[in-house]
Order: sequence, then C-alpha cells, then structure tokens
Amino acid sequence: MRRRFLVAAASAAGGGLMSFAAQADEASKKARVVVQVSEADPARWNLVLNNVRNLQEDLGAANVAIEVVAYGPGIGMLKLDAVTNSRVSEAIKAGVQVAACENTMRSQKLARSDMHPAVSYVPAGVVEIVKRQQEGWAYLRP
Amino acid sequence: MRRRFLVAAASAAGGGLMSFAAQADEASKKARVVVQVSEADPARWNLVLNNVRNLQEDLGAANVAIEVVAYGPGIGMLKLDAVTNSRVSEAIKAGVQVAACENTMRSQKLARSDMHPAVSYVPAGVVEIVKRQQEGWAYLRP
Amino acid sequence: MRRRFLVAAASAAGGGLMSFAAQADEASKKARVVVQVSEADPARWNLVLNNVRNLQEDLGAANVAIEVVAYGPGIGMLKLDAVTNSRVSEAIKAGVQVAACENTMRSQKLARSDMHPAVSYVPAGVVEIVKRQQEGWAYLRP
Repeated sequence: MRRRFLVAAASAAGGGLMSFAAQADEASKKARVVVQVSEADPARWNLVLNNVRNLQEDLGAANVAIEVVAYGPGIGMLKLDAVTNSRVSEAIKAGVQVAACENTMRSQKLARSDMHPAVSYVPAGVVEIVKRQQEGWAYLRP
Repeated sequence: MRRRFLVAAASAAGGGLMSFAAQADEASKKARVVVQVSEADPARWNLVLNNVRNLQEDLGAANVAIEVVAYGPGIGMLKLDAVTNSRVSEAIKAGVQVAACENTMRSQKLARSDMHPAVSYVPAGVVEIVKRQQEGWAYLRP
Repeated sequence: MRRRFLVAAASAAGGGLMSFAAQADEASKKARVVVQVSEADPARWNLVLNNVRNLQEDLGAANVAIEVVAYGPGIGMLKLDAVTNSRVSEAIKAGVQVAACENTMRSQKLARSDMHPAVSYVPAGVVEIVKRQQEGWAYLRP
C-alpha cells in the first residue's frame, strides 16, 4: 500500500499525466501471487504445483511473480523426503520462490538439513502471506 | 490496480475534488467477490452456494458482483450429474457468474456436454482468480 | 478502497507532498488481517490460533489488527464447550476481535448463551470477510 501512495504522491506533486500513466503501467504489468500451503496432504501439494505451473504457462513466466509459502502442517511439502521433491525443484528452476516457515520448523524440530536444499526461508509464513497481500499481491489458497 | 491509478491520474490532472469523490463513490458502491471451489467435497460445494446466497441477501444482489470459479478437484461441482446441479442453476439465475476451468476439463477429459449447461468457461481457473484480485475483487475460499 | 480514494483526493486538491506522505505513512503503519474459520476441525482451529499468535508476536500486537470470523462448519470453534475455549479467551484478551456469524447460529439453532461469552457477533460472516478485504485488509484462510 505504501508504494501505491508514494507513486500517487510523486505524480500529484510534480509529474504530469504521462509519467503517471507510465508508472501505473509499469506497476500493473506483472501479476504477483503468494500461494499458501498449510495442509499435510500430498494431493494438495500437487494441486499447488499444478496451479503454479498453470499461472506461469498462461501468463508467461516473465509476467508473474510467484511465492509459495509453506507453514504449519504444510511444511512437509518442503522436506527433503517429500514425494513432491522433484516438482519443487522444477518450480524453483522456473523462477518460483518457495519459502519454508522457520516458526514451524522450530516447533517441529526441523533443521535446514532436513529441507529441500533450494528453498528459501521466512521467519513466519503467516506474516509473509499478510505482508505480501498488503503490498498488493494476490493470495491463493488452493 | 490499473483502474485505480487511472482514476487517480485523471483527477490529479484535471478533475476537482467533487468529480474525484463522485468517481470514488461509483467505484466503491459495488462489492466484487471471486469465490474458489477447489475441493471434491459436496458439503463444501453447498457451503459455497450458501455463502453466495448470503452475500446476495445481505448486500442486495444488485450491490455485489460474484464469480464462482471451479477448478482442480472442485470441477465436479459443475458437472451435469453433480448433486448441487439445481442449486447451481438457481445461483446463475440470480446473477452469479459460475465458471469452469478449461485446463482442468482437459486434464480430466471432460467435454462441455458433460457440464452444467449454464456455466461459463475460463481458460485457467487459477489465472482468473488471480486476475480478479489484482483488479480489486475480494477473494473467498470457503 | 473508498478511504484510499479520499486520502488521495485530499492531497491532490490541497495538500503538499509532505502531508500526503504523512498520511500514507499513518495508513500503512498497521497491518490488518481478517482470518476465516469455516471448518469443523479442532486441528484447524488450533492452527488459526497459532497463526494469530504468530502475527502478534512477529509484528507486535500494536501493529496489527486481527479479526477472526467463524461461520458455517467453523462456528463450533466459538461454542461454549469448544476444546479451544481457553485459547479463544487468550486471543481476545490479547486484542484480537473474534466474531461469530449470526446467520450460521440461526441455521444451527445456537443462542448467544451457547457461545463463548467474550466473542462479538456479525450478521453474516461471509459479508464481513468480503467487506474487510474491500477496505484493504489482508485475508487469511488457514
């Protein structure tokens, strides 16, 4: 939300219609989606990975930023021995950010060595999901 | 988001406070909700249909645009032989847009003749849900 | 959305960059989240309560407004005899608003005397969730 305000402020203060529209265009070009994984269900994990692939195929991978956040019972999707391991690798190679919740890892006594080696980490999955939405990202909970 | 920018740009460029407020009013009058169906569970389908009915009853059908999007395991809700068939008909008659995901139909080898005759179609349910949110629609995942 | 427009309008009409930025800052300081409970599953209720606690711990309770809305099969979380009763009390003491859907209560023949004594009430849970999002709140469906 802050960014939206600052862009508007810059325009109101000094910019003309053209520069404003240009900035608006720039900002609206790329879709942004945060995808939640909070269930311990491999069928749901595969649905998430299908959804991510469809978003990239239909919008074009360059036109959509996707962040998958696994937390709570969903953390299992990102463990080293998860059935979805190779599909998670593919998603990350395709430019999807895939993040594990460190709060959940602590409560489930999981170390980074227990996790898929290419995932990233966020201190709290639920905070990440809320922050992204407040920044204007769409939210998907498959 | 684009629309929000353009309305603001128009006002900053030439409009006065009055016309801006009028446009804001116009834009904020009608609630807009995209409702996701992604589970193969008839109890969940009925909850979706209850939610839709409650939104129309409480806000007034003229004051809320509702689009139900069924995809993945949720596509069953829109099949010709679904237990929810007559309730889906009622919702569509009441002005709700009900859309089936063509990606899902392809992967489940479903033809349009297998589906409820009054539904509409979207190329990818998940893209539709993301686009709607980026246009300012609320998201409901019952 | 209306509020966003009015802030922008006020700035475009008379305010300078400073006052606009100040208002933007004020508006963006506090995160706002509406959390949905729509399942009859005590494990999910505990996940919701964990999520709420994590949001308050990580952002600071003063920096995030949280409203939990229970409706449909989720209403059980707020009944007097729910297993989550004491955790609901703690959340409310910590400043979380916890609301029960009166539509659901009517259909399940629940009176206020059947409910946790500290909850608040909304006429329709689903309308509350949509309204909050249209006002700029993030949405969480654990």
